[in-house]
Amino acid sequence: MQQVKLGVVGAGYWGPNLVRNALNHDDIELTWVCDLEIERASRLTRNLADVRVTAEFSDLLNDVELDAIVIATPASTHGRLGIEVLKAGKHLLVEKPLADNLDAGWEIVEFGETSGLVVMSDHTFCYTGAVQALRSLIRGGELGEIRFFDSVRINLGLVQSDIDVFWDLAPHDLSILDFILPDDVYPLSVSAIGSDPLGIDQASVGYFSLMLSNGAIAHCHLNWLSPTKVRTTIIGGSEKTVVWNDLDQSQKLSIYDTGVELGALDRDDLARALVSYRVGDMVAPVVDGTEALYNVMSEFASAIRERRAPMTNGKSGLRVLEQIAAIQESMMRGGEPVELTLARREP
Amino acid sequence: MQQVKLGVVGAGYWGPNLVRNALNHDDIELTWVCDLEIERASRLTRNLADVRVTAEFSDLLNDVELDAIVIATPASTHGRLGIEVLKAGKHLLVEKPLADNLDAGWEIVEFGETSGLVVMSDHTFCYTGAVQALRSLIRGGELGEIRFFDSVRINLGLVQSDIDVFWDLAPHDLSILDFILPDDVYPLSVSAIGSDPLGIDQASVGYFSLMLSNGAIAHCHLNWLSPTKVRTTIIGGSEKTVVWNDLDQSQKLSIYDTGVELGALDRDDLARALVSYRVGDMVAPVVDGTEALYNVMSEFASAIRERRAPMTNGKSGLRVLEQIAAIQESMMRGGEPVELTLARREP
Amino acid sequence: MQQVKLGVVGAGYWGPNLVRNALNHDDIELTWVCDLEIERASRLTRNLADVRVTAEFSDLLNDVELDAIVIATPASTHGRLGIEVLKAGKHLLVEKPLADNLDAGWEIVEFGETSGLVVMSDHTFCYTGAVQALRSLIRGGELGEIRFFDSVRINLGLVQSDIDVFWDLAPHDLSILDFILPDDVYPLSVSAIGSDPLGIDQASVGYFSLMLSNGAIAHCHLNWLSPTKVRTTIIGGSEKTVVWNDLDQSQKLSIYDTGVELGALDRDDLARALVSYRVGDMVAPVVDGTEALYNVMSEFASAIRERRAPMTNGKSGLRVLEQIAAIQESMMRGGEPVELTLARREP
Amino acid sequence: MQQVKLGVVGAGYWGPNLVRNALNHDDIELTWVCDLEIERASRLTRNLADVRVTAEFSDLLNDVELDAIVIATPASTHGRLGIEVLKAGKHLLVEKPLADNLDAGWEIVEFGETSGLVVMSDHTFCYTGAVQALRSLIRGGELGEIRFFDSVRINLGLVQSDIDVFWDLAPHDLSILDFILPDDVYPLSVSAIGSDPLGIDQASVGYFSLMLSNGAIAHCHLNWLSPTKVRTTIIGGSEKTVVWNDLDQSQKLSIYDTGVELGALDRDDLARALVSYRVGDMVAPVVDGTEALYNVMSEFASAIRERRAPMTNGKSGLRVLEQIAAIQESMMRGGEPVELTLARREP
Repeated sequence: MQQVKLGVVGAGYWGPNLVRNALNHDDIELTWVCDLEIERASRLTRNLADVRVTAEFSDLLNDVELDAIVIATPASTHGRLGIEVLKAGKHLLVEKPLADNLDAGWEIVEFGETSGLVVMSDHTFCYTGAVQALRSLIRGGELGEIRFFDSVRINLGLVQSDIDVFWDLAPHDLSILDFILPDDVYPLSVSAIGSDPLGIDQASVGYFSLMLSNGAIAHCHLNWLSPTKVRTTIIGGSEKTVVWNDLDQSQKLSIYDTGVELGALDRDDLARALVSYRVGDMVAPVVDGTEALYNVMSEFASAIRERRAPMTNGKSGLRVLEQIAAIQESMMRGGEPVELTLARREP
Repeated sequence: MQQVKLGVVGAGYWGPNLVRNALNHDDIELTWVCDLEIERASRLTRNLADVRVTAEFSDLLNDVELDAIVIATPASTHGRLGIEVLKAGKHLLVEKPLADNLDAGWEIVEFGETSGLVVMSDHTFCYTGAVQALRSLIRGGELGEIRFFDSVRINLGLVQSDIDVFWDLAPHDLSILDFILPDDVYPLSVSAIGSDPLGIDQASVGYFSLMLSNGAIAHCHLNWLSPTKVRTTIIGGSEKTVVWNDLDQSQKLSIYDTGVELGALDRDDLARALVSYRVGDMVAPVVDGTEALYNVMSEFASAIRERRAPMTNGKSGLRVLEQIAAIQESMMRGGEPVELTLARREP
Repeated sequence: MQQVKLGVVGAGYWGPNLVRNALNHDDIELTWVCDLEIERASRLTRNLADVRVTAEFSDLLNDVELDAIVIATPASTHGRLGIEVLKAGKHLLVEKPLADNLDAGWEIVEFGETSGLVVMSDHTFCYTGAVQALRSLIRGGELGEIRFFDSVRINLGLVQSDIDVFWDLAPHDLSILDFILPDDVYPLSVSAIGSDPLGIDQASVGYFSLMLSNGAIAHCHLNWLSPTKVRTTIIGGSEKTVVWNDLDQSQKLSIYDTGVELGALDRDDLARALVSYRVGDMVAPVVDGTEALYNVMSEFASAIRERRAPMTNGKSGLRVLEQIAAIQESMMRGGEPVELTLARREP
Repeated sequence: MQQVKLGVVGAGYWGPNLVRNALNHDDIELTWVCDLEIERASRLTRNLADVRVTAEFSDLLNDVELDAIVIATPASTHGRLGIEVLKAGKHLLVEKPLADNLDAGWEIVEFGETSGLVVMSDHTFCYTGAVQALRSLIRGGELGEIRFFDSVRINLGLVQSDIDVFWDLAPHDLSILDFILPDDVYPLSVSAIGSDPLGIDQASVGYFSLMLSNGAIAHCHLNWLSPTKVRTTIIGGSEKTVVWNDLDQSQKLSIYDTGVELGALDRDDLARALVSYRVGDMVAPVVDGTEALYNVMSEFASAIRERRAPMTNGKSGLRVLEQIAAIQESMMRGGEPVELTLARREP
């Protein structure tokens, strides 16, 4: 099968990973790397014979051989560059966020739909073995009804002048949640609080809660000031409850039988259950360890070939964008819930 | 020195622990155990020669030899029984909560102050080695300015018809927070959300946030539906940050140097800090393992002898009571912040 | 059913646990506690009406009502006291070790067999939920062929003048191994090395290896000088491999699929398996949390009523005794293997 | 300063890491990659302009510009190729083992000494932040007298037809031990046992013990059949004891105060110490995370420039080689101790 000819725009933080995975992927032929600082681009390709390097974005747009472009530039440029990619008739893979405002995001999504070009959001985490397994567990019904979602994503963070802890970390949880929830469970509103104990005019500690359509709460704790790194998500279902510890290499997912008859326990006069550590067996499945970005490349190439929407399409990027904006708004209003309009997914 | 003659009222869930610790304590002489079901009381004392058993609360009130009484009956009776204890001229130790409403709580506190009798709230957790060490670290200044407090208290809980997850678990975090914060940092308001995925007309998953007077947030996650038990609190300070994992017998407290110059990191072009797990050394001090309730008995006996207020006095119980009530109110109003009036502690 | 009338001899280290469990057990009636220091005995019973206290061992032997006696005195007296118990026609439960020498142990076992009295070794660990589950997994065939047994039992130990680290800790592993191995797998010889870095004329660090009849090695690391406490045993089988971490309250047993076709991996040119953390799913079953000593009492009472050998009979105590002695001998000879003669169990 | 011109021989398992680190290192200029299968070499360099590729080892030997060569070919060729490198007047870095037999190893070491060329053993682990810190702790005296060394290195291993679990894993522990021990503590003899439960004519489970000159034991457990990966070493000293868990990214080293007066504990009638998890505080220092192989390159380049012996010189490789051979011999003789002659290091 023919390879997808790909150009990478942006050779900064994420660029090296994109280049490496594109080079290693059988379905992809990397033909361009573009960066305003052309030396950064050159460093990534190390004079590879088949990859051209440029500081001119238009070089890629004008290359009729080029099939697709990844945008990995600073967030504020995503909207503008993304629409140019589509207008040039090329498929688009955009790093988070899809755009820096909802209108620009909508324009990309709509252009993609009318043109038939693939628009994919690089929600990398969704392509890890762990999240793929979570999606199967939940959307396949094994967990039963979703009762709660709780995520802790804390570490010593790089304090940045332009974005707060929500913009830095929330897209991970929001894109994962968007990816794994069943179609009939979606967030209705979000409320958020943050604090700025460093006095940097940016929240460095934050909490937000999404009210889901079935009454459950999806809650996240984001924190740049924690000396220990924690990446733990618990998803409670009526049948099973899964604990995802992304830092435990040997046991990322632990699936517990929820199936305790709580009514039965209630009748038990003694509070034995209160002191027991758990009820029911636990299973820790093997989790596929393929690099997530490799899987992103696979999905992008497949979607292009099959002319279908990718698993994380432009709309998912748009929903995440709306939620981040709503989190900011709620925080400004002291935690007042802000309604979400895009979350209900079409069937 | 003379022993404090003590009576225990209520031989249910907590009663056996009170009886056992009273019997083992050199400063205490257990002389009465009272329970409406007299057999429960008898079972606890196993016919010990020196301990009388009764179903009549008045037997204790009328015993002129008796110095002090512990109330360990159902929560709804605390207010009424507590005031009777004081009116009978006996010192009072009350299990959580101090009373079932604020007015009754106030009456107890005021009666205690005017009568000179000791009123102590059994905030047991405050007398563990871990919390005592946390109090020293914070109030002694070693942590520096408090930047955040985050607690996770989740496990498979005993669903109860009369109380929700907040009433069940929040008093622990609230009493600990009240105990360890410096005098000039106190909660101004609280907001809370809860959900009832079991349909039992009680929240079984809950989150609440206390806005502290210095701008920091104290946040707690309470959950009866988690198959794994977690008891982890992180307290971030400007100098050190401490992680308290109450389930880790060998390393309950881990104290990290916060002292990273975040500004310095910011200037670092490479995001090295983002990927490093931590910065600075960590120290895990030995934590005293004496049973907390034994320490409660010691403090109660000392306070009686020295005619002084105990470390966890009636007022601290009152503050916790106000906070729990405010949590309920906020939850009812969809997370709207509710102001706290008692939290500012007198010098 | 009638209760077994029991006397406890020895109110020292282990005595309180025996007394507490005997008092709580429906099948047992505790009627005597005996200790040379009668006050220690009294302290345990706290003047309980129905329990007599004495410093005279003969009081128990002469009590025609008494059915059974537990010997919890210093090890050097077990042999002498045990045989007296049997000669008085009473059933016998002996703390580790069965006797201080093999001849005395044999006398007890043989007297028990000819008299029809129950002789039980208190191998307490064998009555924990974890070891009971291990026994089922192994003897029920789920693990397949036993390939290796590795135990680490290290902590900061109480250095004692009369016994070394082997006498202190090895009986646990030896009795467990004796309990869980299938009938056709048994130790043929043992070799041991120890070191005495404290210069106390006793080994405080030790290793021993039992050569099993099927070619596998059962190896133990015992250490009094480790600042961290470790209690981890791995038992590898051809079908499953189980990791028992006795300090992990929420996940004592982890059962892994061994079932990787190692031959198949071998053919794999890439060393992928070398870097992967594991292959196959893992299951962590719920482990029964009943106190082991309570289960010991149950088994002792049942064996007496049913006039049958208990699960840990005198012979098992004898085998452990021989193995400990052989470990000492091997250590003296610089690690030379010492043959075991009792280990092959009769069908 | 001038870069060291380096050639890499062997583009298999370890080659890619060597190439990557050589390319990233300022002190090194990679000029050759050699492999019998020239395509493997080409794949590594990806047509980098400045790196030549060849299947002819002699091309490197004959390049007068080339300063140094790394041998990363199969073990059986190390001796022969290594001596050729030196005879061509080039500095030598050899992967483990130094040679496939002691005579060949000696020849390399002696040729290096007489010629003044640098001979370095790539004991990569010695250049990790953790092992560097261990060396400082021990050789700097902070741990006090070494009392024991215990290592567990177990995982699901790639069963190989030509080498057993000792050849596969023991070189890591042996080279680390050689690196961190003080000059006056060295192994006198080794005894080893292994078992072959897979019936592959190779031990896949093994234990060995080095008897150190100060009476302490250094013990290792190596195992290819463990479903869980463990990399934990405990080094007990008279002052401090350090636990190195190489899999714990956030707490690789934990340093405990050993300084409990064990004599004092002995006098304590109560066995309190037995049940306590530990005594004394613990410190977990930050561990440098630089890739070890990068540090290897730094040390190799420095040693060449400074014409000095590297930290892991040819002799250290020779000592490890002798120990591996002695382990094999002891295992064949059923665990009999085999004396070591090279271990005493010259001052």
